[in-house]
Amino acid sequence: MSSAAPRTPVQDHSGPDRLWSVDEHLEDVLTTVRPLEPIELQLLDAQGCVLVEDITVPVSLPPFDNSSMDGYAVRVADVAGASEEFPAALEVVGDVAAGQAEPVHVGPGQAARIMTGAPLPPGAETVVPVEWTDGGLGEGPVHGMRARSLGPQGASGHVQVYRPAEARAHVRAQGSDVKAGDRALRAGTVLGPPQIGLLAAIGRGTVRVRPRPRVVVLSTGSELVQPDEKLRTGQIYDSNSFALTAAARDAGAIAYRVGAVADDAETLRSTIEDQLVRADLMVTTGGVSVGAYDVVKEALSHVGDEDEAGSGIEFRKLAMQPGKPQGFGSIGPDHTPLLALPGNPVSSYVSFELFVRPAIRTLMGLRDVHRPTTRATLAADKALTSPKGRRQFLRATCADGRATPVGGAGSHLVAALAHADALIVVPEDTESVEPGAEVDVVLLGR
Amino acid sequence: MSSAAPRTPVQDHSGPDRLWSVDEHLEDVLTTVRPLEPIELQLLDAQGCVLVEDITVPVSLPPFDNSSMDGYAVRVADVAGASEEFPAALEVVGDVAAGQAEPVHVGPGQAARIMTGAPLPPGAETVVPVEWTDGGLGEGPVHGMRARSLGPQGASGHVQVYRPAEARAHVRAQGSDVKAGDRALRAGTVLGPPQIGLLAAIGRGTVRVRPRPRVVVLSTGSELVQPDEKLRTGQIYDSNSFALTAAARDAGAIAYRVGAVADDAETLRSTIEDQLVRADLMVTTGGVSVGAYDVVKEALSHVGDEDEAGSGIEFRKLAMQPGKPQGFGSIGPDHTPLLALPGNPVSSYVSFELFVRPAIRTLMGLRDVHRPTTRATLAADKALTSPKGRRQFLRATCADGRATPVGGAGSHLVAALAHADALIVVPEDTESVEPGAEVDVVLLGR
Repeated sequence: MSSAAPRTPVQDHSGPDRLWSVDEHLEDVLTTVRPLEPIELQLLDAQGCVLVEDITVPVSLPPFDNSSMDGYAVRVADVAGASEEFPAALEVVGDVAAGQAEPVHVGPGQAARIMTGAPLPPGAETVVPVEWTDGGLGEGPVHGMRARSLGPQGASGHVQVYRPAEARAHVRAQGSDVKAGDRALRAGTVLGPPQIGLLAAIGRGTVRVRPRPRVVVLSTGSELVQPDEKLRTGQIYDSNSFALTAAARDAGAIAYRVGAVADDAETLRSTIEDQLVRADLMVTTGGVSVGAYDVVKEALSHVGDEDEAGSGIEFRKLAMQPGKPQGFGSIGPDHTPLLALPGNPVSSYVSFELFVRPAIRTLMGLRDVHRPTTRATLAADKALTSPKGRRQFLRATCADGRATPVGGAGSHLVAALAHADALIVVPEDTESVEPGAEVDVVLLGR
Repeated sequence: MSSAAPRTPVQDHSGPDRLWSVDEHLEDVLTTVRPLEPIELQLLDAQGCVLVEDITVPVSLPPFDNSSMDGYAVRVADVAGASEEFPAALEVVGDVAAGQAEPVHVGPGQAARIMTGAPLPPGAETVVPVEWTDGGLGEGPVHGMRARSLGPQGASGHVQVYRPAEARAHVRAQGSDVKAGDRALRAGTVLGPPQIGLLAAIGRGTVRVRPRPRVVVLSTGSELVQPDEKLRTGQIYDSNSFALTAAARDAGAIAYRVGAVADDAETLRSTIEDQLVRADLMVTTGGVSVGAYDVVKEALSHVGDEDEAGSGIEFRKLAMQPGKPQGFGSIGPDHTPLLALPGNPVSSYVSFELFVRPAIRTLMGLRDVHRPTTRATLAADKALTSPKGRRQFLRATCADGRATPVGGAGSHLVAALAHADALIVVPEDTESVEPGAEVDVVLLGR
């Protein structure tokens, strides 16, 4: 035993030993990360992206009065009083099909066979559905038209109409869906299938949106081995780069998995510099704690131009469990944001959910960047304990208003994580939560 | 006026004029479509897919006793009674880093610097965190280790330990996460990020899953023009092929948009035959009604080998609005399922939600193939009206337990569809729904 007088460590709240709250760290991330610059994309490439322009309707929909039924375009007076007993017999002067260039003209005593969506021809005032006619077959009411393949030149002869029709019956008026000059979609709209359908309908083949961010994921650790390879003593499989690449895609990103980099500062530095060209955001795992081999810290202080404003990663301790050690900042000439997460699989996954997912969604320009949360009743055999001064996130399943912890608090329980669909949040000032108490829950995968 | 005696149409309930209920048609689709044959996929290619095998843990996790902290691996007796006043001074014999091949041996009076995740070295019984030591620097308690870059040969000299540690403190036991032989994941699990992480962690680089179905989407109609082209008289923009391709992707499919095919049976037939090679499911829009130019019916009865069992598309009338005319069956030598949807944009989208989305999810082997539904209070100025005998689906927004109709019932209101996030369902036997009444609601986009 030595008798050297120990020194009491100083708790410096502004220096590297300052303990950051979860909210402070998140705020720092979200105020630093800016939405990506918009680009013009083909409609289907813009799926899931945020529109940055108000879209005005250039042409009214429908662009012309058209039939909502398969039937006959006629004049109102010609079918007034028509009945099954006393049908109106009209001369069929031709077909009006959708997309047909040359319209027929419908005069008194005449009818044109008209297809759903086809323009109301000149002279016609209304449409009688085919079911109100004999379809030109002379054999009483029919259920459908004779296929064109049976009379390729179009309909001719006569049609019997068994019911009258009001003016503009079964006619969709020009502009009845949207009018030229209307706003079709507002800037900020997320483009899902119906929005893409509307844009196509009004003739927009491309739109200006914020693109999906490209996220490069790399894990660090000399102990990491690729799945399907053989483990030697002291080695484990790399799981973080797989889980976080999948999670980044799930958040909306185009994610690139670099895989595991050995604990060597020079290798890590050159790998990161190499990958910067395809990254809008970089995510590393491991090497951020207090160990002698935590090379992420060392490597990241040398990436890019140190004199460049905004470059540099800051390493912090967060008042949370799991996920205490974290790094955040920007690197390289483009100040690419980088989040350095702890290496433990559960710590890195929880950190991803809390910080990286909102960062990705901020890059996309989404307004709603966070997972939904709810309140639930703690369903557990015994009280949950939580360290004072740390916000704890516990894997759980949540259903029917009840949150049930899965596995223990040990941050290496990847098996439990795979069976959880929620995180129970225990606040910093709470050291114990009794079964039946109300808890805050983050809902994952929704 | 003619005096020809009209014939009363016969309502044949078993022939082509039989009216199918929504549920009958859906059941026909879901009993015909079978889950795709499983294939072995790389982990990240299997994201979102359904596992078809129980996964057993081949090797316990962690695979060896390892340190949960950066610190010193020591013998319990050597630190018993250690305090800040009377620290234990131990000889540092080397480093134990994660992934290091040759372990050091810790003898009495000795300590090895150990990193998080590194195996507990032979001879050591416990780990003291670096924060309980002077880090070998001789200057009282420290917050972290001296970086290896400052002493590349590893630690040497002496370390002062200020607190005792119980046996196996800060040690994660071999198999404490999962044990070899445990079931990691059950067949039927959908692979999200944490499940992919778990599979990687236990060394699985590939898994056997049902692949994402390849869905070919084509719209029909001679009036259809590509967005960004100029509309001529009687033309409209093709929106269905865009909206449904996006919707198919959203449902989990790999979707191919063929675009618009003219109303010509031969062209349509050859296009479909051409596309069959990359289709697990085909979706067409348009040409399924009673008009003379509805060539989908004509074309589809000639695709593939007519003598082949299971081939052939049946065209039906459904007791629903929108979406009355529908076709369903299978075509080609592989009996590829095909859904022929009506051509109206809103009809085709609603039909997709009700029939194609569940078909895609059935192909994927998912258990939960339907959109979630809820009950909500109708928020409207006046009563909704609905045709008797038809199940009506009305576009709506749904929030806080209230469903508010968007736009009218007109099936061409694509603009309203783009602002809806739900469908109000009015049952067949209901002709009017008063404001404030409870209604069934299908939640879209969730």
